[in-house]
Amino acid sequence: MTETTRYSGGGFVHIKNPHLEAMDEDVLYHLDLGTKTHDLPAMFGDVKFVCVGGSPNRMRAFAQFMHKELGLEGDGEDLADICAGTDRYAMYRVGPLLSISHGMGIPSVSIMLHELIKLLHHAKCRDVTIIRIGTSGGLGVQAGSVVITDRAVDACFQPRFEQVVLGDVVVRGTDLDGGLVEELLACSKAIPDFPTLVGHTMCTYDFYEGQGRLDGALCSFSNEKKLEYLKRAHDAGVRNIEMESTAFAALCGLCGLRAAVVCVTLLDRLEGDQIRASHEVLQEYQQRPQRLVAAFIRRRLGLHAAAGNTRPSSD
Amino acid sequence: MTETTRYSGGGFVHIKNPHLEAMDEDVLYHLDLGTKTHDLPAMFGDVKFVCVGGSPNRMRAFAQFMHKELGLEGDGEDLADICAGTDRYAMYRVGPLLSISHGMGIPSVSIMLHELIKLLHHAKCRDVTIIRIGTSGGLGVQAGSVVITDRAVDACFQPRFEQVVLGDVVVRGTDLDGGLVEELLACSKAIPDFPTLVGHTMCTYDFYEGQGRLDGALCSFSNEKKLEYLKRAHDAGVRNIEMESTAFAALCGLCGLRAAVVCVTLLDRLEGDQIRASHEVLQEYQQRPQRLVAAFIRRRLGLHAAAGNTRPSSD
Repeated sequence: MTETTRYSGGGFVHIKNPHLEAMDEDVLYHLDLGTKTHDLPAMFGDVKFVCVGGSPNRMRAFAQFMHKELGLEGDGEDLADICAGTDRYAMYRVGPLLSISHGMGIPSVSIMLHELIKLLHHAKCRDVTIIRIGTSGGLGVQAGSVVITDRAVDACFQPRFEQVVLGDVVVRGTDLDGGLVEELLACSKAIPDFPTLVGHTMCTYDFYEGQGRLDGALCSFSNEKKLEYLKRAHDAGVRNIEMESTAFAALCGLCGLRAAVVCVTLLDRLEGDQIRASHEVLQEYQQRPQRLVAAFIRRRLGLHAAAGNTRPSSD
Repeated sequence: MTETTRYSGGGFVHIKNPHLEAMDEDVLYHLDLGTKTHDLPAMFGDVKFVCVGGSPNRMRAFAQFMHKELGLEGDGEDLADICAGTDRYAMYRVGPLLSISHGMGIPSVSIMLHELIKLLHHAKCRDVTIIRIGTSGGLGVQAGSVVITDRAVDACFQPRFEQVVLGDVVVRGTDLDGGLVEELLACSKAIPDFPTLVGHTMCTYDFYEGQGRLDGALCSFSNEKKLEYLKRAHDAGVRNIEMESTAFAALCGLCGLRAAVVCVTLLDRLEGDQIRASHEVLQEYQQRPQRLVAAFIRRRLGLHAAAGNTRPSSD
C-alpha cells in the first residue's frame, strides 16, 4: 500500500492516531516533556518555525544566530536547552522558532519527529513550517554548495520511504512542499557568496557501504563500481546524499507539516570519500544553510533588511 | 548472498577492505581522530574492552563507575571526552576500557562502529571484547530485568541484518559470541538484586510504529493487532526490543570482534507503551547492565572481590 501526502485543514498538525485522544497523559519520553508535567500550549502554542539538524551544538549555534537575526533582546548566549533532562536531543526556543537536534540517521530523526509532532499537536500550534538544515555529501557539485531538496529518494533513486509496521513494509511517499522550495531559492538570490541549487537528495541507512564509500571497515566493491553507482545517482537527478530526508519528508507530509530540506555539501563524492577540509572551512560551510533559512524566516516575518548580512558564530 | 561471521587469527581486528591500506591518511571524521593527527597505537594499543551505549551521559557515568571498580587513582570525575572536537559521539578511556556513545538507531551505531573498528585496527589492538550496554522494551519480563542477547533478530524475528551496498541488499548473519553469553550469565549470579536472563533481542528501525506502539504521531493498527504481533515475537523467543543489536552483531562479527549485547528493560511492552517510571527508578535500571558488565570485566582482569558491590552514580 502507498500512503500519500495530505495537508490538514485549519493549519493544525494532523495526528493520524485514534488512540492518542484516549490517553490520560502523553509522556514525550525522549524530549523529557509531557502533557501533565508541562503546559505545552503555553510553552509552544505560538511556534511557527521548527528547524532541525543532526548536531546539538549546531542547533544551539543556530538558535543563538537566530536570536540576533530576529533582533531579540540580550545576546542569546544563555539560551536554555528545553530538553536538558535528557541527552537524546537538544531543543532551543527563539521567538517563534524551535531549533532541535535529531542525531544521525532515520531511526533517530523518526523518534524525534513523532514526539515533536505530538508536541505541536498538544500545544495547538498552527501553520508550522519545518526545515531540516543539515550536512551532506555532494554529487557533481562544488563543496560548500547548498542543496534545496525538491525530491527525497532512497538508495534506488525512488521517492519512497519504507516503514515497517508490525513486521510488514508500508511504502510512503516523500513529497516535500514545492512552494517552500521556490521561496527558499528566491531567498538564496540575496546571498551571493555561496552557490545554492535545487536537486534530488538521496537518503541512505549507512554512511560507508550504503553511500558507496571505499574507506569503511568493510568494503567489497571497486572504485569503478562505486563511481558507476554514484554516476547513476547523478543521472537520476541526485545532487547530494544524507541520512534523514526520506523519513523526514514522509512523516512531516503525512502529518500536514510544510517541510523542506536544506543541506550543505561537505565534499564532492565523485572526487573522494573522506571529509578532509579544515575545521574552519567546515564550520563556515555548516553556517550556509543557517544563513539561507534565517533569510527565509526574516522574509516570512517581514524583517527584510539585514537578511543574509550577518553570519552565525562557530559552534 | 549471505555473509557469515568469522573470527580472525592473531586476535587482531579484521578489516575487510582492500582499499584501506592504500590510503595515505585515514580521517575518522565522526570521532574527530585520524592517523596523521593522532598516535592511535600509543593512545589505544592496549585497549581490551569496548563498551558502547546510546546516551553520552550514560557512557560517561559508566566510565566514572569503572574508574572506581578498577581501583584506579583519583575520583574519575575529570575524565576527558576523547572526541571532544565533535558532538556526534563521546568517548572515554579508563584503564583497558573504552566507553563510547553511539546515539540511537542502526545508522548511528553503524557510523560509530566503522570508525571504531578502523581505530582498533590502526592502533593494532588485540583480543578486544565489545559489549553494548543499552536500554530496551521488555516482552513478558518484569521491568528492570537485564537481558543478555543470545540472538539478535529483525522485525520478522529472523537472525539477519540487511545492508544496502550500491543499491543492492546484502544479507548478513547476526551471530553473537556464545561463550560471552555464558560468562556474562555466570557473573549475574553474584548480583542477586535484579533478574538477569538470556533471550532473543528484536532490533527495529523505529521506536513507534516499528515496535507496535499505539502512542506515536501515526498509528494505523488496533491494540489487538499490536498484542498479536508482540505475542508472536515472544513465542519466537524475543524477550526485549531495541534499535541497534542486529547491525552491531553483524558488523562486529564480520570484523572479528567478540561481541555481546546486555540491555535492561524499562517496561513490559505486553502491558503498555509509555515509559512512565520515575527518573530515579529509570536511573537505577540503567545502572544494572553497567554493574553486570563491571563484574564481567573485573573477573576477566582477576579483580574478583568487590564485583557487583558498588553502584554507578547517576548521570
